[in-house]
Amino acid sequence: MTSTAPQHDISSPDNLARRRHGLSVLSEIDGHRGEAVLDSLADINPALGHHVAAFAFGDIYDRPGLDRRSRQLVTLGVLTALGSCDPQLRVHIGAALNVGLSREEITEALLHAAVFCGFPRALNATSVARDVFAEQDDAHP
Amino acid sequence: MTSTAPQHDISSPDNLARRRHGLSVLSEIDGHRGEAVLDSLADINPALGHHVAAFAFGDIYDRPGLDRRSRQLVTLGVLTALGSCDPQLRVHIGAALNVGLSREEITEALLHAAVFCGFPRALNATSVARDVFAEQDDAHP
Amino acid sequence: MTSTAPQHDISSPDNLARRRHGLSVLSEIDGHRGEAVLDSLADINPALGHHVAAFAFGDIYDRPGLDRRSRQLVTLGVLTALGSCDPQLRVHIGAALNVGLSREEITEALLHAAVFCGFPRALNATSVARDVFAEQDDAHP
Amino acid sequence: MTSTAPQHDISSPDNLARRRHGLSVLSEIDGHRGEAVLDSLADINPALGHHVAAFAFGDIYDRPGLDRRSRQLVTLGVLTALGSCDPQLRVHIGAALNVGLSREEITEALLHAAVFCGFPRALNATSVARDVFAEQDDAHP
Amino acid sequence: MTSTAPQHDISSPDNLARRRHGLSVLSEIDGHRGEAVLDSLADINPALGHHVAAFAFGDIYDRPGLDRRSRQLVTLGVLTALGSCDPQLRVHIGAALNVGLSREEITEALLHAAVFCGFPRALNATSVARDVFAEQDDAHP
Amino acid sequence: MTSTAPQHDISSPDNLARRRHGLSVLSEIDGHRGEAVLDSLADINPALGHHVAAFAFGDIYDRPGLDRRSRQLVTLGVLTALGSCDPQLRVHIGAALNVGLSREEITEALLHAAVFCGFPRALNATSVARDVFAEQDDAHP
Repeated sequence: MTSTAPQHDISSPDNLARRRHGLSVLSEIDGHRGEAVLDSLADINPALGHHVAAFAFGDIYDRPGLDRRSRQLVTLGVLTALGSCDPQLRVHIGAALNVGLSREEITEALLHAAVFCGFPRALNATSVARDVFAEQDDAHP
Repeated sequence: MTSTAPQHDISSPDNLARRRHGLSVLSEIDGHRGEAVLDSLADINPALGHHVAAFAFGDIYDRPGLDRRSRQLVTLGVLTALGSCDPQLRVHIGAALNVGLSREEITEALLHAAVFCGFPRALNATSVARDVFAEQDDAHP
Repeated sequence: MTSTAPQHDISSPDNLARRRHGLSVLSEIDGHRGEAVLDSLADINPALGHHVAAFAFGDIYDRPGLDRRSRQLVTLGVLTALGSCDPQLRVHIGAALNVGLSREEITEALLHAAVFCGFPRALNATSVARDVFAEQDDAHP
Repeated sequence: MTSTAPQHDISSPDNLARRRHGLSVLSEIDGHRGEAVLDSLADINPALGHHVAAFAFGDIYDRPGLDRRSRQLVTLGVLTALGSCDPQLRVHIGAALNVGLSREEITEALLHAAVFCGFPRALNATSVARDVFAEQDDAHP
Repeated sequence: MTSTAPQHDISSPDNLARRRHGLSVLSEIDGHRGEAVLDSLADINPALGHHVAAFAFGDIYDRPGLDRRSRQLVTLGVLTALGSCDPQLRVHIGAALNVGLSREEITEALLHAAVFCGFPRALNATSVARDVFAEQDDAHP
Repeated sequence: MTSTAPQHDISSPDNLARRRHGLSVLSEIDGHRGEAVLDSLADINPALGHHVAAFAFGDIYDRPGLDRRSRQLVTLGVLTALGSCDPQLRVHIGAALNVGLSREEITEALLHAAVFCGFPRALNATSVARDVFAEQDDAHP
């Protein structure tokens, strides 16, 4: 690194570059939704926003070892199992559509998850999917 | 249904057929491991074994809406996020290999999950993967 | 099975019979609430609705090994511990009343759960109970 | 309170009385197992042991609003759903037998829980039940 | 104890004293918010309210072994990890401010938690923090 | 960044520097234990090991916004609440001692956590603490 800024300094040129790259990955995958989440963190917890972009999207999502469709299937599994992740499910069901999963594959994935984490988690995730699909229909009727 | 047995009777001809079908799906996906789990339930909780076979594998895993590779990615996401599912991760990491995921894709999926459910869950699932891979190497050196 | 439809076909006569039986169990236990949940799945994830009815209620709830009061106590324990299951708690607190648990027994069960899953989960479940009791009072003042 | 000791002093006469009462409830319900857990806390975290006895058993378990059979059903639901509670499940499956639940009712409760928290949690709890039943058989062949 | 009331009787003089002490600790830590939660339990589950005050605050929070700033850091870690604890996070982020943690330390703690329980839980807790800080700004502009 | 390697390339000079820095933070905090965990990942999931070092320790742990004692209190809260994190609790109870928390403060933190995530989680974390303390006593008798 040419920069002499400490690694934790999220305003260093290195971290700015990492964040910028992460944001470009994020916008490929999630379109506008994900960016809105990060913007909303600028005042309250900018470092959290930085690491979502730089680490989660720049470092991990962009790795070549697994295609994006596969990453979204894993993500749907994790978020459904955790529960209480409605805002994140909303972003990632949108992302799943963006990277080529069909609505039917998404709801099938949620049914599949019910076997392992029970029906309530699958029902709640399906309810978020309903909202995302409806918004999409409203936007492109 | 031709049978007049109540639906909950796991020994009825209908349920026997459903269980037999589920067991064939299970053995396609998991080979011998899954069957061993079910055998171990015969004495203690046979109805639980029945529903794992008839429902989880016969009804759900076998549905055409999502290919098996995709189902295993969702399954890995759910089991990693839940934590405390080592025996099930063991079966389903084996199954992931059986349905065509590479070792690298499996460990990549666990790294990906870390973003959403934290490093401890990913580390513990990776530790199960190490054991499954080592067993496989021992069996086919 | 006389049907030659594949087991996963939720429109087969066998599965229709299983679903119909499950729905009758569901309506005995939950009255109208549970059915409304299933109706809302018809468009978005009909297979999930089928398996809630056919499997959860037709196969499991109706088993003779445990009376319905006992099943609702287990259910309250599970849903309270999971957290983030407000819609399901709403259905099953209503069901608990239907199968003969008193309001006092229900809130006592939630207090009891606090020992094992902590006060926040018990407080949140109690808050759902308050809503269900209030709705009941409004309906039958 | 006659004592002038602060409420948090677990060695005050008041707290000693509360702990002693809790221990008597615990030994009615769990026999020797629970007491062994508390003894093992004496060196490392005596206040945790005090509150398990005085609060969990003395204050809560002993309340009249729900009979012990019902309390154990809620407890089984919570512990199965939480996962990673093998030592506590061991104590409380033993307790469930002590307060009159049959082996069949206990395993039925675990199957029932699978609907709400998924098969892996039910399978792992069943595996603890198998150990508790086997120990009981060894002790009283 | 001079009282001959059973230990579980939350209206006994001993329990009234324990509850009163817990309420004074609660109001030191949480100001008015916590008390409002307890008031709301008076009708629906008074024993739950009693034990939150008498046990959680009177017995545990007031123990000398850990200062209040440290207790709030542990509490933030637990509530963030559990998820689905928005009302409790709201109370305890307010309490964290009351006992001397700065806004920056609180949001830093939530970022720190992301490493161990994943970004979704940290994002959701940060969203509650934003609301608490905004309310505080509205009250003292 | 002077490097033209893609951001996800964990062997690039930039990432090597980030990992090296993270490892130095890790060894300050955890001594030898944490490093052993990372070494064990070299064969199976080297990228997971990289991100534990570079992100978790290099990016986050080292941030100035919260002192290390405070970070360990949050960490203990999160790991206790998650459950099924024994290897991580072992590392971080050791780390807590290293950064200046006393044994009594650590066990007090686990008791405190019981209020929010229930006694079973606190009991299991205390059992890990007992092992860590005993190992320390064996090493420095």
